Amino acid sequence: MDNKEISKAVINRLPRYYRYLGLLMDQGIERISSGELSRQMNVTASQIRQDLNHFGGFGQQGYGYNVRYLYTEIGKILGLDQTHNMIIIGAGRLGQALANYVRFEKRGFLVTALFDRDPEAHGSRTERGTVIHPLSELGSYLDENRVDIAALTIPTEAALEVTPILTGHGVRGIWNFAHTDLEVPDGVAVQSVHLSESLMQLSYKINHQ
Amino acid sequence: MDNKEISKAVINRLPRYYRYLGLLMDQGIERISSGELSRQMNVTASQIRQDLNHFGGFGQQGYGYNVRYLYTEIGKILGLDQTHNMIIIGAGRLGQALANYVRFEKRGFLVTALFDRDPEAHGSRTERGTVIHPLSELGSYLDENRVDIAALTIPTEAALEVTPILTGHGVRGIWNFAHTDLEVPDGVAVQSVHLSESLMQLSYKINHQ
Repeated sequence: MDNKEISKAVINRLPRYYRYLGLLMDQGIERISSGELSRQMNVTASQIRQDLNHFGGFGQQGYGYNVRYLYTEIGKILGLDQTHNMIIIGAGRLGQALANYVRFEKRGFLVTALFDRDPEAHGSRTERGTVIHPLSELGSYLDENRVDIAALTIPTEAALEVTPILTGHGVRGIWNFAHTDLEVPDGVAVQSVHLSESLMQLSYKINHQ
Repeated sequence: MDNKEISKAVINRLPRYYRYLGLLMDQGIERISSGELSRQMNVTASQIRQDLNHFGGFGQQGYGYNVRYLYTEIGKILGLDQTHNMIIIGAGRLGQALANYVRFEKRGFLVTALFDRDPEAHGSRTERGTVIHPLSELGSYLDENRVDIAALTIPTEAALEVTPILTGHGVRGIWNFAHTDLEVPDGVAVQSVHLSESLMQLSYKINHQ
């Protein structure tokens, strides 16, 4: 299988397949037809067949999909067979909410440290015991520790200041909650969660249906 | 202008246009060419012309776009010329983070109440003074107060339980942070923020670039 042939749209749908396949495994279901998966996921069976054909066409007529195999393969595509060390910049409510989200750790995303500007927070720990460091120590921390992902739960200006420090010290993934786009060098990935924009999309839907 | 002609893809891009046009207004910029907007937003000028043509084609050769007019029109399409009352179900860290997000209020989304199962939280207030109510009072609250949007910052099972109460009492928009899809009647809009899935998409990007 050649990953490069998989379109961005399919990739964006993979986490949802992964979630549903995980639910099926939790229920002890070993195989499922595209028709049944289609009903549960509320997408067309032909969409499912098209999407999952990228992963080797192991849906067989009269058998359906092998749930565990598909779950494992999609997990590998998404990089979930590896662990990722994640730091969180901004130990406010959102940062602490992310730091305590058990589900991330189950998927191999380990929150190893938080950073904050507020001197009162320094040296304290999150509910799960992760230490909050001064933001001024970010560079030296990155030199001494492997960090794959930095989540930015800080305002726009702070995010723009911190990003070059992160990328300059080898962080390859930025999970951006700030209300701005970020410019990063080639080889660095950014995934943004723009909450205001999500709320505006909801507002549009409410006002046009 | 007929809103129904605007594709979902364009709608999904509107909040980002709105954000950039707001930044331009803050800088006192009254008009902008599609080329300059293209450079700032890092999308092609032809995409911008195509998208913004839906809103009356007021980009004029040699003049460019009138920033304030476009900002206002897009705001209307998104329903931001109206206020929306929003409640938050789940007064944990994420719920409280949303409740204290000043930007939402600027856009007309007013957080009027939070609800939580935890008796210790009842009657207490968020930093901004919004009261946290017992979840058992949700139905009667909805009968007595106009609520347009409910944000669900609770686990899957609780979200599935609460959703029919919300829709049964006339809530037309659900902003879903639970790790599940929600089934709702016609006329109710759901916008989901699946944080785990966003993180998986980042993981994919890191591992494939």
